[in-house]
Amino acid sequence: MREAIEDSRQWKSQGYGGPFGALVVRDEKIIARGFNLVVKNHDPTAHAEIIAIRNACRILGSHSLAGCEIFASCEPCPMCMAAIYWARIDRVWFACTHMDASSAGFDDSLIYREISLPPKARELPMSQILREEALEVLETWARSADKIPY
Amino acid sequence: MREAIEDSRQWKSQGYGGPFGALVVRDEKIIARGFNLVVKNHDPTAHAEIIAIRNACRILGSHSLAGCEIFASCEPCPMCMAAIYWARIDRVWFACTHMDASSAGFDDSLIYREISLPPKARELPMSQILREEALEVLETWARSADKIPY
Repeated sequence: MREAIEDSRQWKSQGYGGPFGALVVRDEKIIARGFNLVVKNHDPTAHAEIIAIRNACRILGSHSLAGCEIFASCEPCPMCMAAIYWARIDRVWFACTHMDASSAGFDDSLIYREISLPPKARELPMSQILREEALEVLETWARSADKIPY
Repeated sequence: MREAIEDSRQWKSQGYGGPFGALVVRDEKIIARGFNLVVKNHDPTAHAEIIAIRNACRILGSHSLAGCEIFASCEPCPMCMAAIYWARIDRVWFACTHMDASSAGFDDSLIYREISLPPKARELPMSQILREEALEVLETWARSADKIPY
């Protein structure tokens, strides 16, 4: 964790992104690390955890990080938490909370609140259209013998 | 939306990822599109919406998509929903629901349930350590005159 915090301290030298760092670890060895690169890369998805997960997957040649743990200098936001589930990571270690991030000016707590609501109750306008047409594609995939589930 | 659904239909030709497509639109023009590339790219974060957002940001040279809308062939998962908030997108259009995705074998509903719980109540083990050390970095960032908020 001290290494993830040390990475978070490098926000200025890493291009003025948010002050966050994350590491993916397997068998007590660091496989990959991530700095927040939102500002530098013009990429709102480039949180430290997302970068660390993408780097670890590239290194392992797999979209699964089962057997790995992630260390994050701050509690992962909902985007990063969901990415951790999709990546099948076994365990999460974090230092600051999402309330700490919000106190520093980030929207983590707002996004946690919004995502816990059904789509129609959110502040962000959301509308559903053409479900039947899209559902046919999903169902075809589900029935397909050569699909690759993840 | 018909174009996003048509993209979702290309899952086989696009490398056997999930059957999902997404488009970012501004002023009624398509700026960027995304296919699900989880399997092809060994990247669990490569959902259609994430790819479309990253492509749109690269094209616009900004980490903000304020003024844009997103069309997704399926209700965005929590990772993609949070990315939509971080990207400041104005409006979401979707076709299938996250329950439809779960019926087809994806973990969207499970992840929505887990993320709505506090960290200690989740099935995924989460532990907090060294908060004070990380908080000092966050607070230094918050006080810094040359930070770039996002």
